Amino acid sequence: MGVIEHFWAVVPAGGAGTRLWPLSRRAHPKFLHDLTGGGRSLLQATVDRLVPLAQDRVLVVTGRLHRDAVVAQLPELPPDAVLAEPAPRDSMAAIGLAAALLEVRDPEAVMGSFAADHVIADSAAFADCVARAVAAAREDWLVTIGIDPTYPATGFGYIQLGTELEGHRGVHRVARFVEKPTVEVATAYLAAGDQRWNAGMFVVRPGVLLDLLARNHPDFAAALRAIAADPVSLDAGSLDAGSLDAVWPSLPRMAIDHAVAEPAADLGRGAVVPGSFGWDDIGDFANLRTLLPAGEDGVAVLGDPQRVRAIDASGLVVTHPDRVVAVIGLDDVVVVDTGDALLVTTTDRAQDVKALVESLHETGHRDLA
Amino acid sequence: MGVIEHFWAVVPAGGAGTRLWPLSRRAHPKFLHDLTGGGRSLLQATVDRLVPLAQDRVLVVTGRLHRDAVVAQLPELPPDAVLAEPAPRDSMAAIGLAAALLEVRDPEAVMGSFAADHVIADSAAFADCVARAVAAAREDWLVTIGIDPTYPATGFGYIQLGTELEGHRGVHRVARFVEKPTVEVATAYLAAGDQRWNAGMFVVRPGVLLDLLARNHPDFAAALRAIAADPVSLDAGSLDAGSLDAVWPSLPRMAIDHAVAEPAADLGRGAVVPGSFGWDDIGDFANLRTLLPAGEDGVAVLGDPQRVRAIDASGLVVTHPDRVVAVIGLDDVVVVDTGDALLVTTTDRAQDVKALVESLHETGHRDLA
Repeated sequence: MGVIEHFWAVVPAGGAGTRLWPLSRRAHPKFLHDLTGGGRSLLQATVDRLVPLAQDRVLVVTGRLHRDAVVAQLPELPPDAVLAEPAPRDSMAAIGLAAALLEVRDPEAVMGSFAADHVIADSAAFADCVARAVAAAREDWLVTIGIDPTYPATGFGYIQLGTELEGHRGVHRVARFVEKPTVEVATAYLAAGDQRWNAGMFVVRPGVLLDLLARNHPDFAAALRAIAADPVSLDAGSLDAGSLDAVWPSLPRMAIDHAVAEPAADLGRGAVVPGSFGWDDIGDFANLRTLLPAGEDGVAVLGDPQRVRAIDASGLVVTHPDRVVAVIGLDDVVVVDTGDALLVTTTDRAQDVKALVESLHETGHRDLA
Repeated sequence: MGVIEHFWAVVPAGGAGTRLWPLSRRAHPKFLHDLTGGGRSLLQATVDRLVPLAQDRVLVVTGRLHRDAVVAQLPELPPDAVLAEPAPRDSMAAIGLAAALLEVRDPEAVMGSFAADHVIADSAAFADCVARAVAAAREDWLVTIGIDPTYPATGFGYIQLGTELEGHRGVHRVARFVEKPTVEVATAYLAAGDQRWNAGMFVVRPGVLLDLLARNHPDFAAALRAIAADPVSLDAGSLDAGSLDAVWPSLPRMAIDHAVAEPAADLGRGAVVPGSFGWDDIGDFANLRTLLPAGEDGVAVLGDPQRVRAIDASGLVVTHPDRVVAVIGLDDVVVVDTGDALLVTTTDRAQDVKALVESLHETGHRDLA
């Protein structure tokens, strides 16, 4: 594709990835890990995918707790490319902060937000979708990229395609955003063929985003713009972050979908680019297993396959450098070996890891969660 | 029961316990471990059980590799109580060496050999069997203690009871020793009621044992007596072990059952004391699980139960002090966590651990086996 002028990539790097415990921890969350064995963390791979389109116009929005780790993983970015939220306030605040800064910095900016912890197999197809989305966003559409669903997922919201935009091949109006469905509804969506997964990829002019926010939440939009107007706030590395610290705790916790995307669709200003580029959010270990190749012995390994011995077994093993892991006679098993915690479960029960981590919290094992 | 005069307890401490890998290792075998969570290793518990009967008349026969560990675990014994074999030569050599030494040391000795890696729940019932066996052995019988079978085991040899000895209540002639049976034969044995497990517990006068050996293997018996006649050999701690080192490599590798016990039975000189005292040889992790109480969550723990989190799980977890182990949605699972190796299997497949350890050996991971 090549560079897209005035395109700014915004990368929200948050979320603990609780269902990937004990690999993912509050202090070292999912996006900092190399979960595909390719030698790059999910965050690094996300930025690697965006730099060819945006060059150094990348903003990563993360928590203060993770700022140093993020900066260390991305030495190629300028230091002010990493914005540190004083505390997590959900996606509208994080992406809205980036929008407010970009509105000041580049009047011609079109921003695209892409989570730091997703994987995408086909970068070229992804880039093609982004380029189409940016072209529509320049005409003041709020554009999302909708993932072609591959199974009746109940863990994602869906986007229903409307008619194609005039002059924008492969870009559709959003008929509506829909909540996470039941499996029956999801199955019907898959059969209908006009539904796409909402992966939280929004491409929009910063001013359009903030103006849309201001329609229903004027104080929220004003607060974000006030932060951006304070030059101290822009120095993300500053310990005294000025308006950012003063204003941040008062911001509402809202998902960008509810705050802006659904209202935009209701106003007839939402667009969607359907995309098929091998996307996965690695929600849990069952997910992760499908992304890794299975070895000859039937077991997929994240880490060092030489450290795994499997007899009559299948599933996923995440290795620790200090230990050999032997698995005998278990199918679809999940073994995750870390320095201070070990998980043994099955791909069927991968979702239940979340409950376990919550129980660790409640019983005083916060250090492990 | 109380002390049995001139009774010497001989404790062969050998065997790697391969099916208990990675807990049991060549360099730190099963008998050195506390497998019941009672705070004493199997070796220590074995000696604890025998000291009330034998006082300090205890001889432990172990490999040179393990001599220091054995001495360290048994500080209450005199230093010459631990005999170190230059290399493993099977049970006849180990027990025969003790017999040859005792023949010289105490003309009235009756020795009883009891493996270092078995568990016994009811020490009083065990002591009662030993006392009966010693009384018969003083009249020159070769006496074994036969365990009441609790299931149709195929992993043990059996002893068929003959008529009761005159003047020795609860002591029977041995009709015959039989090899490890098929499960069908074992089931028939259990139904017949006159078969006992052969747990390798032999009670006999040392001279009787060596004379029985000498009938079919005169050179073997003579070699053992030659070692005992060399005073250097008796200094088990000596680096230059005299005749022991010179003679040992030439000794045949024979099981005491074949070398002495079966011939004694054929000569009408074998006796057996049937015993029921909660015996287990902890052959594998399925075995071990049945010996440990299951926690409220359904999982038996060897180690620290506070380090185990189980949801919808049952089985056995062996913990490591550095790690929490979480198990979700697996029944009859076996998780054994050690510093450098981790085993995940099921109780059904516990036997297959042996094949895995052999594969580690063959592929150059001798350090782990």
